[in-house]
Amino acid sequence: MPLDPLSQLTEKLTAFRDDRDWKQFHNPKDLAIALSIEAAELQEIFLWKKPEEVSGTVSKKRVQIEEEVADIASYLLLLCHEMGIDLNKAVSSKIEKNAAKYPVEKAKGTHAKYDEL
Amino acid sequence: MPLDPLSQLTEKLTAFRDDRDWKQFHNPKDLAIALSIEAAELQEIFLWKKPEEVSGTVSKKRVQIEEEVADIASYLLLLCHEMGIDLNKAVSSKIEKNAAKYPVEKAKGTHAKYDEL
Amino acid sequence: MPLDPLSQLTEKLTAFRDDRDWKQFHNPKDLAIALSIEAAELQEIFLWKKPEEVSGTVSKKRVQIEEEVADIASYLLLLCHEMGIDLNKAVSSKIEKNAAKYPVEKAKGTHAKYDEL
Amino acid sequence: MPLDPLSQLTEKLTAFRDDRDWKQFHNPKDLAIALSIEAAELQEIFLWKKPEEVSGTVSKKRVQIEEEVADIASYLLLLCHEMGIDLNKAVSSKIEKNAAKYPVEKAKGTHAKYDEL
Repeated sequence: MPLDPLSQLTEKLTAFRDDRDWKQFHNPKDLAIALSIEAAELQEIFLWKKPEEVSGTVSKKRVQIEEEVADIASYLLLLCHEMGIDLNKAVSSKIEKNAAKYPVEKAKGTHAKYDEL
Repeated sequence: MPLDPLSQLTEKLTAFRDDRDWKQFHNPKDLAIALSIEAAELQEIFLWKKPEEVSGTVSKKRVQIEEEVADIASYLLLLCHEMGIDLNKAVSSKIEKNAAKYPVEKAKGTHAKYDEL
Repeated sequence: MPLDPLSQLTEKLTAFRDDRDWKQFHNPKDLAIALSIEAAELQEIFLWKKPEEVSGTVSKKRVQIEEEVADIASYLLLLCHEMGIDLNKAVSSKIEKNAAKYPVEKAKGTHAKYDEL
Repeated sequence: MPLDPLSQLTEKLTAFRDDRDWKQFHNPKDLAIALSIEAAELQEIFLWKKPEEVSGTVSKKRVQIEEEVADIASYLLLLCHEMGIDLNKAVSSKIEKNAAKYPVEKAKGTHAKYDEL
């Protein structure tokens, strides 16, 4: 049976890492730092932009945005690999938790945090 | 043909979002901010921890780590959905770019950035 | 001669820290992580807010914003203390550098980064 | 009476900003984003570094660290200026709050969060 896409990506990422002998650096703490840095680089693309400028930025900087998204995903998959987290299950079960935290009748159309609903 | 896991997750996430009428808030700029906030929450779990404490933290806080990882993945998938980014392709092509930036013979065993190799 | 305000704050912060024997945790790497986490908490206050909602948020969440600002300043002052950085000089000399990077005639009225001016 | 150092820095920063007509971009939300990005750049200097490598990094990258620290301080002071926050008071009153949250007898020598003391 062929690997699912997430496992395939993880295989490519660990092969890339092992070719460079980088597993020694990839502890969960530094992977979390790395992910946070990449998230900031993604944010920087939108810094100072007004809502009406965002879609122009999205077109103009598409390649750069895809690269930052890929970097974030890569560190996330490596962290899941290190920790044996099944990302698919983790997201599905978090959606269920959030459904309880944000019941439709209270949360509909508002961006308030759950403790302010 | 059944959807691949990433598309299935994205379907669940957009259904959750649409039930709550939250699409109006999910512009790329705010999704990037949200992702960055979740990345910081992941980091916080490891704050002040020495390397020898990290594996203990990983066991003790496993549920919380899985939740933060799921939050990050969720905003990432929603951003990809908003922008029509194929995450699978984006990661694969970034790995190829990084292979050129970090050639094995220069990058092996060092955590130096590519401009310092 | 009385201490200037920044040195007074730093004295209060190190006294607070030393009473709790926390100097052992305050290495520059973890102080930078802590600062980044506090910066994310500040951001969270403005998440999903449209420009026209920001001033309302600023009034409603004033106390919380002041606390996050204080946390960021505290970790910044502790980091400067650990590293012997004179914050006053550092900011003044960075302003001079930025003046060269962003000459008035090119940078006026645009939020482009210096490498795109 | 001469201005205290923080007010002097704020004056330099707003003069720099006004020469470039950048006040229009400096709403609290984007200032918080900018601060968070600079905090990530500071973190990046320590990424993948083991505790025993941190002091070497601090010496080797001193100039760069000072610049990131200055950038963070600048956005923090501009935010305080925009919002009329007295940073001196904000930090002092946060220290008092933290003293209640982290009583010496409970917090001494531990990096546990207040809700886990």
